[in-house]
Amino acid sequence: MLIALDAMGGDHAPAAIVAGALLARRELGIEIALVGLREVVEAELSRDGPVPAGIEVIHAAEAIAMDEHPAQAVRNKRDASINVAMGLVKRGVAGACVSAGNTGAVMASALLNLGRIQGIERPALGTIAPFTDTGVLVLDVGANADVKPNYLVQFAQMGAVYAERVMGVRNPRVALLNIGAEETKGSELMQDVFGRLGRAGVNFVGNIEGGDVHLGVADVVVTDGFTGNVAVKVTEGVADFIFRELRAAIYAKVQYKLAAAVLRPALMRMREKMDPGTYGGVPLLGVNGVVTIAHGNSDARAIRNALRFASDGASSGMLDAIRTFSARRG
Amino acid sequence: MLIALDAMGGDHAPAAIVAGALLARRELGIEIALVGLREVVEAELSRDGPVPAGIEVIHAAEAIAMDEHPAQAVRNKRDASINVAMGLVKRGVAGACVSAGNTGAVMASALLNLGRIQGIERPALGTIAPFTDTGVLVLDVGANADVKPNYLVQFAQMGAVYAERVMGVRNPRVALLNIGAEETKGSELMQDVFGRLGRAGVNFVGNIEGGDVHLGVADVVVTDGFTGNVAVKVTEGVADFIFRELRAAIYAKVQYKLAAAVLRPALMRMREKMDPGTYGGVPLLGVNGVVTIAHGNSDARAIRNALRFASDGASSGMLDAIRTFSARRG
Repeated sequence: MLIALDAMGGDHAPAAIVAGALLARRELGIEIALVGLREVVEAELSRDGPVPAGIEVIHAAEAIAMDEHPAQAVRNKRDASINVAMGLVKRGVAGACVSAGNTGAVMASALLNLGRIQGIERPALGTIAPFTDTGVLVLDVGANADVKPNYLVQFAQMGAVYAERVMGVRNPRVALLNIGAEETKGSELMQDVFGRLGRAGVNFVGNIEGGDVHLGVADVVVTDGFTGNVAVKVTEGVADFIFRELRAAIYAKVQYKLAAAVLRPALMRMREKMDPGTYGGVPLLGVNGVVTIAHGNSDARAIRNALRFASDGASSGMLDAIRTFSARRG
Repeated sequence: MLIALDAMGGDHAPAAIVAGALLARRELGIEIALVGLREVVEAELSRDGPVPAGIEVIHAAEAIAMDEHPAQAVRNKRDASINVAMGLVKRGVAGACVSAGNTGAVMASALLNLGRIQGIERPALGTIAPFTDTGVLVLDVGANADVKPNYLVQFAQMGAVYAERVMGVRNPRVALLNIGAEETKGSELMQDVFGRLGRAGVNFVGNIEGGDVHLGVADVVVTDGFTGNVAVKVTEGVADFIFRELRAAIYAKVQYKLAAAVLRPALMRMREKMDPGTYGGVPLLGVNGVVTIAHGNSDARAIRNALRFASDGASSGMLDAIRTFSARRG
């Protein structure tokens, strides 16, 4: 199955994107359509020798910068690499699309080119937190700053399908991120959502507090895009802070440095586990196509992992499962 | 100055509370009124020898359990230890009140007994995140799950006063927790608040994302009580997760264990820095009195630190400064 990869999106595009494509092709055997300015992409591709079979370049005349207004740029630049990549998915040429570009632009392009799944009111951005072996899916983490109760119900349903199909969790436990365990806790919105989730056809296990997400008591954590975005970024920030402090503490004394050298493999494994690049990407759920958004600062390894992630999503049947769920409910 | 300490509130009350009072008296010279069932408190107090001068016991006939309905319990049990402690502050006998009890009950008791500062619409719960030497004050972290724009403006003003008076930060930088840097980012609420903060008489430095709070680019981070609560609990949860994983990684191999023994002092310092007990308590701002709420699971050291924290708050003049700010604005 071919995966469309936006060669022009990301802080280190196109070099890191192309390098990631080469890694994914070599190590995972994924077939890739690199979408971008042909000359630029081909120059990158042939830097280290002949282009391997299974990677093709699809020309796109324009690119969207990280700081452009997402919706406007997507509408004004119809030949932007992200639009061309989405077009490949729309036409069934590619099974999924990966981009490390401007998140708002990727979402806008997905909505414009692929549209929403019938019955889904708003797409949601998920992220997989590395707190358990299978991971904890948190959604929405930024697509919808303002929500209505029913959006969250649909996030729960899409999240449950995703956890089952792609993450391999049977009968995934779905929890609502809230500021207390009881049904009567939290904002008016969350109290309303709590009642609805009991009737949503998912394995709803109740509220979960921010301090318990890492305990693995839920597989899917449902929240609005504002809270979810803050939670995910705080997670990254705190991990960054702790590892930075740890490094400073270690370099403070010679004997620490020696001990740290021994511990280095264990510390590196920890650091890698907490690194967003390990998963490489987050799924955009609710649009008519498999879309993976990679971190803006993705390196080659992160892009490789995002391609694997997208490929798994495309072959999982999760899109049809969400469509079925949505149709049954509607 | 006398500090009223709720002897009956907290997971480890009264033993840990009384032990904390003894520590604070011995090590910091703070005068303390222990409020609770006289017999019980006196038995704890005399466990290790004679009661030192500067600690007195004030009898309160009732106590509020951690799982009681906060507002109801506070109204129905007028002789509850937390109400009696607040009464001491109200009558000017004590300069501040400390409790590790049910947070909702402490807030309800403060509102009932002390009332709000004139002009302040809602009190806010602050917490001091240990990301910088002076700390980063985040508020509200749970008093108000549903907010109006003006509440957040007042949180910013109270937070700025607190940071200046108690944390010792000159001209504190105030930021709004949001999901993007630009004025046009985030929920409708936060876009509205952004505009108001520019005219709020504080040193407003703009939006801050969840991943940047630890960078020390702001001294006061303003948010609603829902988002703030999630952010603070996620911070604790992630720290807990990383230290737990670190321990597991270290115990996986003998040579790691030896290296870790050398690193232990550095690791312990890190862990302590991230421990809520290091500050020992969070301020409730906007009520007519200095109120410090300690973590429910506080040990003696956390209570000692909360008493120091409350004592600093009481002698800082921050209450009058908030009143002045509020009156000037009103």
